[in-house]
Amino acid sequence: MTSSSTYSEQPGRIMSREMSEQPEVLRRLLDTGAPKIRETAGMVAAQRPRFVLLTARGTSDHAALYAKYLLEVRLGLPCGLTSMSTTTAYGARPDLRDVLVITVSQSGGSPDLVASTQAAREAGAITLAVTNNPDSPLAAVSEHHIDILAGPEKALPATKTYTASLLALHLFIEGLRDGDSTAAAPLPDLAADLLARQQEVRTLAARYRFAERMVITSRGYGYPTAKEAALKLMETSYIPALAYSGADLLHGPLAMVDNISPVIAVVPDGRGGEALQPVLDRLRGRGADLVVIGPKAQVEQASAGFVLPTEGVPEEVQPVLEIIPLQLLAYEVTIARGQDPDAPRALAKVTETR
Amino acid sequence: MTSSSTYSEQPGRIMSREMSEQPEVLRRLLDTGAPKIRETAGMVAAQRPRFVLLTARGTSDHAALYAKYLLEVRLGLPCGLTSMSTTTAYGARPDLRDVLVITVSQSGGSPDLVASTQAAREAGAITLAVTNNPDSPLAAVSEHHIDILAGPEKALPATKTYTASLLALHLFIEGLRDGDSTAAAPLPDLAADLLARQQEVRTLAARYRFAERMVITSRGYGYPTAKEAALKLMETSYIPALAYSGADLLHGPLAMVDNISPVIAVVPDGRGGEALQPVLDRLRGRGADLVVIGPKAQVEQASAGFVLPTEGVPEEVQPVLEIIPLQLLAYEVTIARGQDPDAPRALAKVTETR
Repeated sequence: MTSSSTYSEQPGRIMSREMSEQPEVLRRLLDTGAPKIRETAGMVAAQRPRFVLLTARGTSDHAALYAKYLLEVRLGLPCGLTSMSTTTAYGARPDLRDVLVITVSQSGGSPDLVASTQAAREAGAITLAVTNNPDSPLAAVSEHHIDILAGPEKALPATKTYTASLLALHLFIEGLRDGDSTAAAPLPDLAADLLARQQEVRTLAARYRFAERMVITSRGYGYPTAKEAALKLMETSYIPALAYSGADLLHGPLAMVDNISPVIAVVPDGRGGEALQPVLDRLRGRGADLVVIGPKAQVEQASAGFVLPTEGVPEEVQPVLEIIPLQLLAYEVTIARGQDPDAPRALAKVTETR
Repeated sequence: MTSSSTYSEQPGRIMSREMSEQPEVLRRLLDTGAPKIRETAGMVAAQRPRFVLLTARGTSDHAALYAKYLLEVRLGLPCGLTSMSTTTAYGARPDLRDVLVITVSQSGGSPDLVASTQAAREAGAITLAVTNNPDSPLAAVSEHHIDILAGPEKALPATKTYTASLLALHLFIEGLRDGDSTAAAPLPDLAADLLARQQEVRTLAARYRFAERMVITSRGYGYPTAKEAALKLMETSYIPALAYSGADLLHGPLAMVDNISPVIAVVPDGRGGEALQPVLDRLRGRGADLVVIGPKAQVEQASAGFVLPTEGVPEEVQPVLEIIPLQLLAYEVTIARGQDPDAPRALAKVTETR
């Protein structure tokens, strides 16, 4: 790649630095951000939303998907992920009374997100923007705003803003139900422990040095992690990485797995992991190359893996941890392939789709 | 493949026959099915749903996504696609009063769909099953049922049940808004015209004989087509085919496109196609191998393509036509690779996920 030398003398320096900031970002959110988020949650709860629509793109869309699981499971609120083109291209004007519209965007600058959020507010929705920039146009057009406090993100592959968005959404949704946020307390230290195991991930990365494609699967709370890991691998290393929920994988794409596609399974320690068991059994039965990111007992039954510290960590906050070894993996695979994770081809930080 | 010879003497015979039945299935739905569907729509409309949740897997999930665009654009009803694991794995019990839950399933037999629909009904939802089997457990647990009248589907890759589901959902949603269904009248004849052009698709298929991956993109109403085409290619030929909405493609995966991934763009004749233009320009600017399925003027600007007859066909029913050349393409690429489209590895017709 000719662009890498002009961009950075040390490939991946920027992405590496931002990954390493994650413990500090999570701690800042818990210490400084949480009271304000809880206050916002209180205001939203008082407006009594009955349905939730989530809007986002790319990495933020995976954070939105995580929020969808939390809202459905923890709050019993029916939820949907929206297609913003119905508003921006087709001019749809749905009746959004009693609907909470949550828009997640690192930059808060995508014109289509701003336009669809503005249209939602005019249609009667309660609007909430979750961004890394309180001065952004998206924050300005939304009734409520949550700042994820991740500090400037320079690398094109988003890392710290993803984990920060997950935690911010968790705190918000626990606030909506007036729950507590003790589940999240150990996350900063555990994130630091995970980052310290980069050498382990480097060993795992060797496995994918020549992979031409990959399948990443999970279920439940782990599914957003599978989708985000696939995007991270694609945008840094250009390996076509296909993410499927375990159930969808059995519906067809399993045909692709035999010998030729290595599989990474994100196995939550909890009900999502239990629901994934039949899929893991099937994959093992077919002799798939199966790498597990999950609890020790699961990793031991796989071809290889990375043990996650899940003891005492409720399943619903595990996604904040799960993605970290997979961010490192995308980084290490890209370095191993002689490419620069900081200089993906053709990636713009703010997507100007209209 | 050793399995193909035991399964069928003539590779792809079953899939081929079922694809060729599509004009007749569409005609049956318009002639015989439409009055009953309209009656069901009238009953559902009288229950005044304010929000719609759609549940499905695999091919049916793409039909559900099509319905979501229709519901949002044509009816202004906020919609979501559900994750059934929140109910089946996590036991979520959302408050579903005023919510219409539409479950789409060819067989109507997947236990997780039956369980989540039953749970939705108990939680106060208006439930509608769209299946190819009125005697299925799913039809039994749902308050309302629409029969897509496609006749038995034996091939593992679903084809006629997909186009039938699209048309049935279109008729239902037009019924909800008390619109007419004249837009759909030309579809059976146009579908027959498309099927008669198999030789054209065979020529196009040669292009992908050695492809190691593909990207399929669209926007708006064409996006479900992109997703279904990718699934069809994967489950028959095992080519990793990645489907992205045009806007999402610009968010990262574009890095994968350069030279190495051919791109198929489904270009709706209408606002979705207009919204896709910046993406097409960008792809052409990068020298991507771009094959367009769409109107003549669009195909002429691409590397190659397949012209869709869209004159006088409103954009919202074009998806019924768009998928047909792509079904044929999946079939032809698979035959060209010496595999049997009727015998995909590891694919079960009814997925027994719980």
